[in-house]
Amino acid sequence: MQKQIALIIIGDEILSGRTQDVNTRVLALELAKIGAALKEMRVVPDEAPHIVSTIRELTRRYDYVFTSGGIGPTHDDITADCVAEAFGVGIDIRDDARAIMVARYPGGEADLTPARLRMARIPDGATLIENPISGAPGFRIENLFTLAGVPAIFKAMLERAITQIESGDLLASRSIIINLPESEIAGPLAAIAASFPKLSFGSYPGMRDGRFFAEIVVRGFDEKAVDEGLARVARLRTH
Amino acid sequence: MQKQIALIIIGDEILSGRTQDVNTRVLALELAKIGAALKEMRVVPDEAPHIVSTIRELTRRYDYVFTSGGIGPTHDDITADCVAEAFGVGIDIRDDARAIMVARYPGGEADLTPARLRMARIPDGATLIENPISGAPGFRIENLFTLAGVPAIFKAMLERAITQIESGDLLASRSIIINLPESEIAGPLAAIAASFPKLSFGSYPGMRDGRFFAEIVVRGFDEKAVDEGLARVARLRTH
Repeated sequence: MQKQIALIIIGDEILSGRTQDVNTRVLALELAKIGAALKEMRVVPDEAPHIVSTIRELTRRYDYVFTSGGIGPTHDDITADCVAEAFGVGIDIRDDARAIMVARYPGGEADLTPARLRMARIPDGATLIENPISGAPGFRIENLFTLAGVPAIFKAMLERAITQIESGDLLASRSIIINLPESEIAGPLAAIAASFPKLSFGSYPGMRDGRFFAEIVVRGFDEKAVDEGLARVARLRTH
Repeated sequence: MQKQIALIIIGDEILSGRTQDVNTRVLALELAKIGAALKEMRVVPDEAPHIVSTIRELTRRYDYVFTSGGIGPTHDDITADCVAEAFGVGIDIRDDARAIMVARYPGGEADLTPARLRMARIPDGATLIENPISGAPGFRIENLFTLAGVPAIFKAMLERAITQIESGDLLASRSIIINLPESEIAGPLAAIAASFPKLSFGSYPGMRDGRFFAEIVVRGFDEKAVDEGLARVARLRTH
């Protein structure tokens, strides 16, 4: 079995088109390595009721949920408060988070401005996730991991958080490019897919130099079967 | 007022990490040009019940919804069927879609393989959206626009679909880079934000050459107020 994961990006900046999301792909690839599956991703605006209801819905539906973004020091960073509300717990400055930040800043206590202290506010009952890049930690509460949105920090926190997820069966995945339009291989491809009910066959069309091609991705938990499926697909090239 | 829009990406390939989504940003930027707002984006797997329930939920909640992906000729292209199911209508090969494809292929009728005919299956009551790149059309039914996922085709279909959305107030957006860590400007920035209740002030941290900076994005419908807000933020540089 594989754990089923969802990602919530708190991201006005993604929804406005200002920023290109890259964290989804990083999470997807890291989860694949431990045999877990990203099953849904949502980008929601920086609006508390929307964030709270999305956290509640997805933490009930999936084994684990990640959030990305909104845990910095500014007024528009509201994720930690939304997490506390979603789980019905309090939130306050916590000594362990505070200590991490005191140790981090050159001036120690003197550098702990109110804005920085905001980043030490952690929902009650959460455990911290180390941030080796800028200090201010992420956290986990129940099945929710709350990470920073800045890609380098998201990735560093993810490396630490992902060790808390139980490994599952590794999904083998192979792909092949067929230099034909999808419509010319769709029939035989469907027949191959039907004859390997335990494998999934994805067909992803593309264009290069004005010519259509299809990348066929074969996935399954039985590596040998995946190779057999791929060999069948490869013969479509000379179809 | 601005129309509120959601995007659903039917995308096993995004959730597996194979493909980097780029359609969200294209949609967000095009909507901004006509004064409409992307309010939510979801990536769901290629699984019919999940797609159907997501379409139902979001078409009720938002003014318009776009889908991206899953309308090609292969067995894993199930979006059109899911749309029909979500709206409780039938789906079959339609003459107008068929005619477009006959005109498109060099061999005319003779080129209409069963796989290609699959792309002429349109939910009852939908209107077609032209596909100038590869022929097979997208479609609109009620407040849902169903577009292809291949970025060049998504974009071309979007240019045609977006003319059907009522224009709204244009949101003015300006941004400025402050070469200071967010935590050093968070206090005064919150004060500025409080003094312009009709504007939104987003703070997006980043790192360059090992130093933190913050990009502050000021948004609002009153362009003059946005400029005033930005001028106040600019003074934080010498704070």
